[in-house]
Amino acid sequence: MRILEGLRIVESVAFVAAPLSGMTLAQLGADVIRCDPLQGGIDAHRWPLTASGRSLYWVGLNKGKRSLAVDTRNPEGQELVAALATQPGAGNGIFCTNLPATGWMAYERLRARRDDLIMLNVLGNADGTSAVDYTVNCATGFPFATGPDHGATAVNPVNHVLPAWDAVTGIMAALGILAAERERRLTGRGQLVKLPLADVAMAMVGNLGWLAKAEVNDEDHFAGGNYLYGAYGSEFLTRDARYVYIVGITKRMWDELGRTTGLAEKFKQLEAVFEVDLSREGDRYRIRSAITALLQPWFAARTLAEVDAAFAGSGVCWGPYRTFQQLLREDARCSEANPMFKRIEQPGIGSYLVPGSPLQFSAHAREQPRRAPQLGEHTDEVLADVLGLSAAQIGALRDKRVVGGPIELPLRPPRP
Amino acid sequence: MRILEGLRIVESVAFVAAPLSGMTLAQLGADVIRCDPLQGGIDAHRWPLTASGRSLYWVGLNKGKRSLAVDTRNPEGQELVAALATQPGAGNGIFCTNLPATGWMAYERLRARRDDLIMLNVLGNADGTSAVDYTVNCATGFPFATGPDHGATAVNPVNHVLPAWDAVTGIMAALGILAAERERRLTGRGQLVKLPLADVAMAMVGNLGWLAKAEVNDEDHFAGGNYLYGAYGSEFLTRDARYVYIVGITKRMWDELGRTTGLAEKFKQLEAVFEVDLSREGDRYRIRSAITALLQPWFAARTLAEVDAAFAGSGVCWGPYRTFQQLLREDARCSEANPMFKRIEQPGIGSYLVPGSPLQFSAHAREQPRRAPQLGEHTDEVLADVLGLSAAQIGALRDKRVVGGPIELPLRPPRP
Repeated sequence: MRILEGLRIVESVAFVAAPLSGMTLAQLGADVIRCDPLQGGIDAHRWPLTASGRSLYWVGLNKGKRSLAVDTRNPEGQELVAALATQPGAGNGIFCTNLPATGWMAYERLRARRDDLIMLNVLGNADGTSAVDYTVNCATGFPFATGPDHGATAVNPVNHVLPAWDAVTGIMAALGILAAERERRLTGRGQLVKLPLADVAMAMVGNLGWLAKAEVNDEDHFAGGNYLYGAYGSEFLTRDARYVYIVGITKRMWDELGRTTGLAEKFKQLEAVFEVDLSREGDRYRIRSAITALLQPWFAARTLAEVDAAFAGSGVCWGPYRTFQQLLREDARCSEANPMFKRIEQPGIGSYLVPGSPLQFSAHAREQPRRAPQLGEHTDEVLADVLGLSAAQIGALRDKRVVGGPIELPLRPPRP
Repeated sequence: MRILEGLRIVESVAFVAAPLSGMTLAQLGADVIRCDPLQGGIDAHRWPLTASGRSLYWVGLNKGKRSLAVDTRNPEGQELVAALATQPGAGNGIFCTNLPATGWMAYERLRARRDDLIMLNVLGNADGTSAVDYTVNCATGFPFATGPDHGATAVNPVNHVLPAWDAVTGIMAALGILAAERERRLTGRGQLVKLPLADVAMAMVGNLGWLAKAEVNDEDHFAGGNYLYGAYGSEFLTRDARYVYIVGITKRMWDELGRTTGLAEKFKQLEAVFEVDLSREGDRYRIRSAITALLQPWFAARTLAEVDAAFAGSGVCWGPYRTFQQLLREDARCSEANPMFKRIEQPGIGSYLVPGSPLQFSAHAREQPRRAPQLGEHTDEVLADVLGLSAAQIGALRDKRVVGGPIELPLRPPRP
């Protein structure tokens, strides 16, 4: 019994945010049925790929779901998905899409089949126009505030590589579903939940104070390297050419940095020189370059292992920089030593380290990571068990190519 | 009646993730009571600040909450917060913290007062050691994959400025609360929910396929400028020195880019030169530099307004880069034309544009953005209405400095 056991979500989704929403709920125990065309969805071949041409991205974002391969250009296929999405039963009747919710997929059309339907529509922009993480992020102000300092000029924008807005939107979409499902249990009422990616991004810019700074202070904000805005945080290079990041946000973090590096007295002297009070985070930000200049030789004289040893058991808040491979090879938090991770077998790809949900519920054993389905792996099972179709009915749908699976997608090896 | 009306969350939190969790729920209608010391929490003066020294960050992350100012070093103060957190009633009994959940705040201690308590503990690392967004992010691999191309070398890491892991963790924490609250309604059972920031980050690195690429393909991944990995996406400079970002992820986006720029025929010729099939996203990535070289003169010959006009109504997926001030001044999505935003008055700060929740529920009118509380603004109201204390009891607590408010925090203007 997992925490969301009994909930069923039917989804017609692609790319990051909407699939992540379903996967997040699947990892908490919901039965999530992803519906895709028989040739695979538009994200079926998204990079990163294996050398043989399978998408590592797709299997990452669809773990623990069931897969129905169905042709929704065909009215019979539309009927199957609509019937699945609007099945009777308390945990059923939840449908998610990030496609345009029109035609057979329009909320009013589906709701006519089940009045208390919950439908989630993840949008690009609130007006329904298309937008993706990259074309929203560029407008948020962050790219001009990221990367090396080049003065107060809007040049050299730096995009994030983590699709952060997709990630936040995906989790918020899952939250929207649970909020609507809660209301349905209490009142019997279903509803359409809309979540525009652009609104998620712009709300967060506001939540973090950047819009207020622009408006109230009438000031913009530009890139300042890796310094942490408003307190102390900086990267350092160690003797063995590794980078670390050190923060002094709270008073205790700052005091511990002085204590462990033996530089507390020098910091005191800096206070006198610059006439600042380094117990104040803003003053640490103000003289960040001087602080960094004092700390640099300490790091340059030590290897990463020596830095680690010096800070062990202290209140210093720091971390090493790692590449993706270093993360995998060096970081115990990203290994089977962390019960969130398991090395599992994904057919066609092999055995690799896979994360489950970061949420730990004390009333439940930790959900073991489950692999992603093959396209159409659960077609028969879903049609028989959920829709109650007979073998003959399923056979007829297969003959007409309305449904199919399991389907081996054509490989698309990346070219050199 | 808002969608989470009737839920009450008591929180003892600071910084981004945990306050964001509570604010997200407050914006959906939950009654969220933030408890802070009488001198303010450790995040009370976090930047950005106004010129007069008020935190724009704090008011951004605590909108729509009630504030109780209470000294929890004092056992009487602890008793008040514990009583609030464990009040009887179906919607009560939810407590959130990102402080170490020890002593009076330990789950078992609080649970002794209410057996079905739901407690959420946002952690740095799963083992309880401290970690913040910056010291987790450096380990995720992303900083070495962000920014200008410098070959396959782990140098020049670029931090994100958006605290993306905090943002994801905050929303996921809210999701964890609703999942636990759902179970409590169904089974009567409460529980402790733990959510480590580092696990959120590392799970996402896995979900997006980067861990699999590192392990299955045995390859690392390094910065490649603003190119979109695995399909086409690039930034361009316009004639009026503005930047735009253009993506061609789907076939339609790509075809529309060729059509609107008049370069479709040239793209065909590129296919012959490089022996690729540009209907395949991976091939677009492979020859991204050549595609960019073809497109660059088109953008360089046009102003941003002309680019906008050329793409209007088409299927091209693109967006302009903006600074925070440009976002505020130019982007209708970030204005009162978007019903998510309202310009509201925040005492001590003034009137400025404030976002509500990006989630739109069709069964509810959109929640109007509400301002953040002043420290201790609701002390009397909470003690009287929620705990049922008399005016005399509240007066005695005030006299002993166990509670206080409303409190005007000392100003900390940023030094030049």
